[in-house]
Amino acid sequence: MAKPSVGIIMGSQSDWSTMKEAADILDTLEIAYEARIVSAHRTPDRLWDYGKTAVSRGLQVIIAGAGGAAHLPGMMASKTRVPVIGVPVQTRALSGVDSLYSIVQMPKGFPVATMAIGAAGAANGGLMAAGILALHDAALAQRLDAWRAALSASIPEEPVDE
Amino acid sequence: MAKPSVGIIMGSQSDWSTMKEAADILDTLEIAYEARIVSAHRTPDRLWDYGKTAVSRGLQVIIAGAGGAAHLPGMMASKTRVPVIGVPVQTRALSGVDSLYSIVQMPKGFPVATMAIGAAGAANGGLMAAGILALHDAALAQRLDAWRAALSASIPEEPVDE
Amino acid sequence: MAKPSVGIIMGSQSDWSTMKEAADILDTLEIAYEARIVSAHRTPDRLWDYGKTAVSRGLQVIIAGAGGAAHLPGMMASKTRVPVIGVPVQTRALSGVDSLYSIVQMPKGFPVATMAIGAAGAANGGLMAAGILALHDAALAQRLDAWRAALSASIPEEPVDE
Amino acid sequence: MAKPSVGIIMGSQSDWSTMKEAADILDTLEIAYEARIVSAHRTPDRLWDYGKTAVSRGLQVIIAGAGGAAHLPGMMASKTRVPVIGVPVQTRALSGVDSLYSIVQMPKGFPVATMAIGAAGAANGGLMAAGILALHDAALAQRLDAWRAALSASIPEEPVDE
Amino acid sequence: MAKPSVGIIMGSQSDWSTMKEAADILDTLEIAYEARIVSAHRTPDRLWDYGKTAVSRGLQVIIAGAGGAAHLPGMMASKTRVPVIGVPVQTRALSGVDSLYSIVQMPKGFPVATMAIGAAGAANGGLMAAGILALHDAALAQRLDAWRAALSASIPEEPVDE
Amino acid sequence: MAKPSVGIIMGSQSDWSTMKEAADILDTLEIAYEARIVSAHRTPDRLWDYGKTAVSRGLQVIIAGAGGAAHLPGMMASKTRVPVIGVPVQTRALSGVDSLYSIVQMPKGFPVATMAIGAAGAANGGLMAAGILALHDAALAQRLDAWRAALSASIPEEPVDE
Amino acid sequence: MAKPSVGIIMGSQSDWSTMKEAADILDTLEIAYEARIVSAHRTPDRLWDYGKTAVSRGLQVIIAGAGGAAHLPGMMASKTRVPVIGVPVQTRALSGVDSLYSIVQMPKGFPVATMAIGAAGAANGGLMAAGILALHDAALAQRLDAWRAALSASIPEEPVDE
Amino acid sequence: MAKPSVGIIMGSQSDWSTMKEAADILDTLEIAYEARIVSAHRTPDRLWDYGKTAVSRGLQVIIAGAGGAAHLPGMMASKTRVPVIGVPVQTRALSGVDSLYSIVQMPKGFPVATMAIGAAGAANGGLMAAGILALHDAALAQRLDAWRAALSASIPEEPVDE
Repeated sequence: MAKPSVGIIMGSQSDWSTMKEAADILDTLEIAYEARIVSAHRTPDRLWDYGKTAVSRGLQVIIAGAGGAAHLPGMMASKTRVPVIGVPVQTRALSGVDSLYSIVQMPKGFPVATMAIGAAGAANGGLMAAGILALHDAALAQRLDAWRAALSASIPEEPVDE
Repeated sequence: MAKPSVGIIMGSQSDWSTMKEAADILDTLEIAYEARIVSAHRTPDRLWDYGKTAVSRGLQVIIAGAGGAAHLPGMMASKTRVPVIGVPVQTRALSGVDSLYSIVQMPKGFPVATMAIGAAGAANGGLMAAGILALHDAALAQRLDAWRAALSASIPEEPVDE
Repeated sequence: MAKPSVGIIMGSQSDWSTMKEAADILDTLEIAYEARIVSAHRTPDRLWDYGKTAVSRGLQVIIAGAGGAAHLPGMMASKTRVPVIGVPVQTRALSGVDSLYSIVQMPKGFPVATMAIGAAGAANGGLMAAGILALHDAALAQRLDAWRAALSASIPEEPVDE
Repeated sequence: MAKPSVGIIMGSQSDWSTMKEAADILDTLEIAYEARIVSAHRTPDRLWDYGKTAVSRGLQVIIAGAGGAAHLPGMMASKTRVPVIGVPVQTRALSGVDSLYSIVQMPKGFPVATMAIGAAGAANGGLMAAGILALHDAALAQRLDAWRAALSASIPEEPVDE
Repeated sequence: MAKPSVGIIMGSQSDWSTMKEAADILDTLEIAYEARIVSAHRTPDRLWDYGKTAVSRGLQVIIAGAGGAAHLPGMMASKTRVPVIGVPVQTRALSGVDSLYSIVQMPKGFPVATMAIGAAGAANGGLMAAGILALHDAALAQRLDAWRAALSASIPEEPVDE
Repeated sequence: MAKPSVGIIMGSQSDWSTMKEAADILDTLEIAYEARIVSAHRTPDRLWDYGKTAVSRGLQVIIAGAGGAAHLPGMMASKTRVPVIGVPVQTRALSGVDSLYSIVQMPKGFPVATMAIGAAGAANGGLMAAGILALHDAALAQRLDAWRAALSASIPEEPVDE
Repeated sequence: MAKPSVGIIMGSQSDWSTMKEAADILDTLEIAYEARIVSAHRTPDRLWDYGKTAVSRGLQVIIAGAGGAAHLPGMMASKTRVPVIGVPVQTRALSGVDSLYSIVQMPKGFPVATMAIGAAGAANGGLMAAGILALHDAALAQRLDAWRAALSASIPEEPVDE
Repeated sequence: MAKPSVGIIMGSQSDWSTMKEAADILDTLEIAYEARIVSAHRTPDRLWDYGKTAVSRGLQVIIAGAGGAAHLPGMMASKTRVPVIGVPVQTRALSGVDSLYSIVQMPKGFPVATMAIGAAGAANGGLMAAGILALHDAALAQRLDAWRAALSASIPEEPVDE
């Protein structure tokens, strides 16, 4: 199996139902990835290690999903210069607005590439990773172009009653 | 000078104009404290060290102020069992709602005792610290009672035109 | 049975499904507590009495849960210097944003240590109480450290499909 | 001077610049009132006494203004059956949304007649009080009708450049 | 049957499930009322007539419930000096925040006594009406006092598992 | 002077600074209009008359601006089938979110064509009116096309420091 | 079949359950229309073509529904001077507030006539289109007047228990 | 001068005061860029061309800033697979929440890497671009690491009164 170029990390097992949308996109586009649970609060040392070794391990993009006071993406961005994509997981009381604000409102110095709240955002995390990797992978660029073309081609002209 | 029992930490120098309200309260109530800049993103290792040594250094309360994707209070709460009080600093675009959500919406396991947005919240951070310390410091309890009584006594019966 | 050092109070019976998360934590950590319904609006005199006798009865922390115009935590904070932890209960129309604002936005003088909205916030209320009590209870400190270590150890490395 | 039938109360001196709009309306409509500072948190006993004696003192309406975790109107409503009108004072960070939610979201049993945020709300508090008193005061009813007619008559047909 | 002193009006049949909470309170307190559908947009002339005849028909309070761009309470307040109580009905997309803002943010001159969003607000509309009527109805005042006392007495000391 | 085909109405004189942006656009595009102050609450009968005579007077579009509990656009839409364009005026406490919700959230039956909050929305109200009138006025269609083309042509390629 | 004067467009098939409310109104009022899926992001060239040919094809109104970062209505407004009505489709995480802001907050130059969030907004999109077309179609004006009169006549005087 | 690898685009000249923060970062890190005004609504064809030629012109990252119904970043993402970073510009009425929602809530297929609202977000847009380019530019990676290290080193230990 290929060495992963993308790391999908998430704050808890319960985020996986959202984040596997990112994994599905990477599978479809034949991008090697790993999926890990890395909790900013429960396993901060795991976060530290993950961030500190990201460059040397060859990771090129990290997709981090979290909900509520979602500190994982931002803390990862402070530990590595590998681009971090943040996915705000939808929450019960605040519908993910808390996750969104916690992820996107990063101070100058540590950007997190924030996606939409929930499953669409996770899928787009995968596509953003693909777009970054495609800059230096012509075959992937072709697959990504094809995926986008297929998406566009799949739209019917007229709506149908269901 | 007494060994500090309270640590006031903040994400940047610009938070000090808010957080010195906490310091003023601690001064008034004769509680020894230290004030430090500890940025979750810019100085994560400083945060790690601060949290890891909090118990052994004798800190009994940590008051942490931050704005935006305010990760400092929550990350500190993950590194130490010393009670962490969070102060959401008012921000330009979102008025501190981003800070509030990032601080208060912590997952199960790592509570942050969140105060009001801005200067009143910082002052109350000092008072909450005092209330915790007063549980085992009868003299401080008396000073705190007196401070509260004086506040109540200071309220005039009728408003005056200004 | 041990004299309770923590009082869990709530505005109504319907808040108990949220607040028993706090009780569960206190049970787990072997902290003696009492649970009472104290409505700021329906039983204001009960609130008055509870606050006025809190110190003499030996309470060291009060965890107060309420929803909507959640006045209970703040009014309790005005009646006693015993630290008050506030838990915003989720509401039907406003999802607990009303509860959160009513609890956290206290004026200078009367802090309420506000937790996250809902069940996670209630559990964290119990943990914050434990953290405060652990400052002068070495055995509890050990139990709390162990609880936190167990939580961290419980996180698997990789997510699993469910 | 006539015995006041309306009590204007507010949480602090700083609310007076808002609440005097209510007083101005009452002056204009020749309704006797008193203005008092009654802080829910700093002077809870004053609040208790005010509420407990409201009926016997002949108050017929209470207009209560407060900002932030604005507990004054709701707590007053729990202490007396005299109708309580609530005025959310505009706040710095949350613009009075916190005040509004804390005042309007009262639980079943204790209504607060909530007005708009800020000065217009305070003026309307005075007018709502007038409307209530006018139900049994024909002369006041006439003055209120005249005030309303004058307001309508004051509106020019066309806007003018300024 | 007694001539109604309270008019309960609502924008549509679908609001009745909320507004009958107001009717239930009035029934319990033996206050005569009528319930009418008066749509600000669909039956504006009905609204006009209702407002114009409110005083002469002997109405002393109008409780108006509406959702969304909830214009009914405010327009009624512009047509009569009879006190208007507004109840924001919960809505699908915006949960009643739209209703609340449309009802509470009235300009100077035309107050609407706004209640909480949804069923609790409707019940409180009935209680606010009772409080107003009780100012000149000693028997009702007694019934209202008794209702409030019973509510307080109904609160158990401790929560029970359900 | 030409008979006006557009009526610009607003709740108060203070809305004119916003609404004259609509007038400026109509002037530029040589569309005859009238500007009137029509307050939903202070001059409801004027609103009634305006709506009832809109068709017979030859109005083809009504642009209505209002702030806060902005009932004017929606009430006008209930009185006439002439298309009503609503402009939410920015407010002090809620920045026009109250105006926006009150205008846009109309129930089925009475649409209001809502524009952006503030001056840009008022200008766009003028342009939307122009687009409607241009459907049957070829010369106006040409002027509108030219205006749009000029706007596009006015955009420089590169930003300049100022 | 008559040449369509109204185009109903939507971002995806899933928007049709909302947008067919617009179609139903147009059917009822005997207005010829077409319904098309035109995705701003997935089929931008289709959007371009649709906009560029709207005038020549005889479209007089375009009703565009979209959810989330709902770019379709605004982009269509930039491509044609035919009046564009925007319908914010309700979304999962943000309930359509995202759709509303994306549609209504258009910059000066390109108005979108924004309707309420969801099905009521879609129906009103149909009615707004009818109001525009009725300006030059006396028979349609009569049908629209009749539809409005029937709606008003359908409102019962009193609510009934269900 | 080097061929630009980054395109900074913005909806209008007024966005430049925000977006030049991105340019400043790129200057500091010695990354060649171009800055262009590309309005989604006023110059849609320019947007089309820019997107269609982005790959062939060698652009590797596009940083797009826009305010209000900020369609520029999302529309650009639909026209090219080159990674698009979105910067929500702060707005007058809604403080940039409108910009944020319009940019971040993209549907599956077309990710926009969204940054914080305002100047900090623009600077972070530059840093995110640098992080992406550094994946295949070791010298830039070193400069970026140094920039980050200098930022961390610049944080003093203690706050100072100002």
